[in-house]
This record gives sequence, structure tokens and C-alpha cells, in this order.
Amino acid sequence: MFALHPRLAQDTLVIGDFPLSRLLLMNDAGYPWFILVPRRAEMREIFELDYDDQVQLLKESSQLAMVLSRIFEADKLNIAALGNMVPQLHIHHIVRYRSDQSWPNPVWGLFPPKPYSPRALQETCVNLVEHLHDFIPDPGCPVAPRVC
Amino acid sequence: MFALHPRLAQDTLVIGDFPLSRLLLMNDAGYPWFILVPRRAEMREIFELDYDDQVQLLKESSQLAMVLSRIFEADKLNIAALGNMVPQLHIHHIVRYRSDQSWPNPVWGLFPPKPYSPRALQETCVNLVEHLHDFIPDPGCPVAPRVC
Repeated sequence: MFALHPRLAQDTLVIGDFPLSRLLLMNDAGYPWFILVPRRAEMREIFELDYDDQVQLLKESSQLAMVLSRIFEADKLNIAALGNMVPQLHIHHIVRYRSDQSWPNPVWGLFPPKPYSPRALQETCVNLVEHLHDFIPDPGCPVAPRVC
Repeated sequence: MFALHPRLAQDTLVIGDFPLSRLLLMNDAGYPWFILVPRRAEMREIFELDYDDQVQLLKESSQLAMVLSRIFEADKLNIAALGNMVPQLHIHHIVRYRSDQSWPNPVWGLFPPKPYSPRALQETCVNLVEHLHDFIPDPGCPVAPRVC
């Protein structure tokens, strides 16, 4: 049975669930940094997922990446499945700017995380789910009712 | 028209072509390190590829990852599309061991590359293509004829 790894639970806010993956916001204001975790037990590598799940993960990753690129006006996205420290399969989606503290290096291990204020954490979550409402029906942060 | 980025051409050996992607061997004996480059011009992000190309890239990535995991007896794979330095879309596939020089950190920027000897470079290429002959019909390193 799927359960979020305690380290991921500790370091992130749950934004909501795509059909396959849980979407997390890393509590590090140094970068807009999101993580997809397929809700399947005992997975460590992408190729271990069933083929249909692999394709669904790809769709969710590209939907997320497209939205992130647009709303954050990213210079580049860094998308990575590493898992050297947290074995549960999870895929980083990090918005990068030429002006960010670690550019052009990868972000891992360079700077300690800068936790968001509770309000900024919520605002970052709300900002994203407003652009993902077609994919994440029940977000973990409050969203204004849609006017149809 | 697709052309391999000069920096990738300089740092790698071309192993061969999957239906979509060129497969490269990074000339760094510190890790078994391979790179897939979709042969499409002007691509920087996975989501910029046509949907069919995205699915083909996923298939090639998982075929490669499964073979790498098995033949190198990997403790973990690190799969990443970064592109902060080389803008052409390319996806790293790096075999990691708990005993390698950078574990558990990501590999980028920690140690200077250790070039293979010409013979070791060829042997690493041959070792891989023998397990990918169904996908890479015309490899860049010599392979013994198959006995059917």
C-alpha cells in the first residue's frame, strides 16, 4: 500500500493528487520546486512501473512542466529522478532562473533550504493549483470558486 | 535540422541511434554514464516534443535504464533532464553505487571527469550494445556477429 516517505512528508506540502501521482511543494523558497510521487507501493525506478503508469507519469510530468514553465516564466526546468537518499520513486521538477543562487549548477547540496512563511507556502500552492484545476480536483490548499 | 551540440560531441562517444534518440557514453570512467538526445532540432524541454516523441523517449529511456540496471548491477539510477549548461534537450542516465565517489550526492560538479582509455571506452560501448541490439541496429562500436 502506498504511503508517502516520511522524509518527503517532512520537507514538503501536499498540493494534491493527479490521477497517478501526488504533487508536493518543496518547502524551500530558494526555487519553485515541485515533486511528483506515483502512488504505487515499493517503486524505486521509473521502469519498474507498469507501462500504462509510465505513460501516465509522463503525461502528468509534462502537464506540470508546461504550467510551471509558463506561470513562473522559467529560464529552464530541471526534471530528475535521483533517489539516492529517499528511495521512494519521486521526480523533481525545479524551476530555474539564470539569476538563481545555484545557476548553472544543479540545486542539490549547494544551499540549505529556506523555508517559506506559512502564508507564502499557501500562496505558492494556490497559484499553482489555479492552473492545474483540470488535473487536480481536490487540492490541499484553498482555491477560490471558479466562475463559469 | 538536428545536429549534436558541440559540447556533447566533445565529451562523449556516440554509441548509436534508437529510433528517436542518439545514445552517448560520457567519457568519464567515474560512473557508467549515458545520455539520450532526441534527434529533433531546437528542443530544450521534454514537453516541447510532440506527444508521440515523448512516449518514444519514455520507451527508450526505460529500455536503457532496465539494461543498465541489470548489466551494471546498479544500486540506483539517476535519470535527469537538466540542460542548464548545454541547452539541447538531453537526458542523463547514470548508474550509481553506494561505493562510488559522489554517493549519495548527485554527480554534477563534484569531481573532474576521468577519461577512459581508448580501449576501455570501446569495451564499455560494446558491453552495452550487445544488450541493446534489438533497439540499436547500427552501433558506433564493433560488435561480434550474432549467432542465430
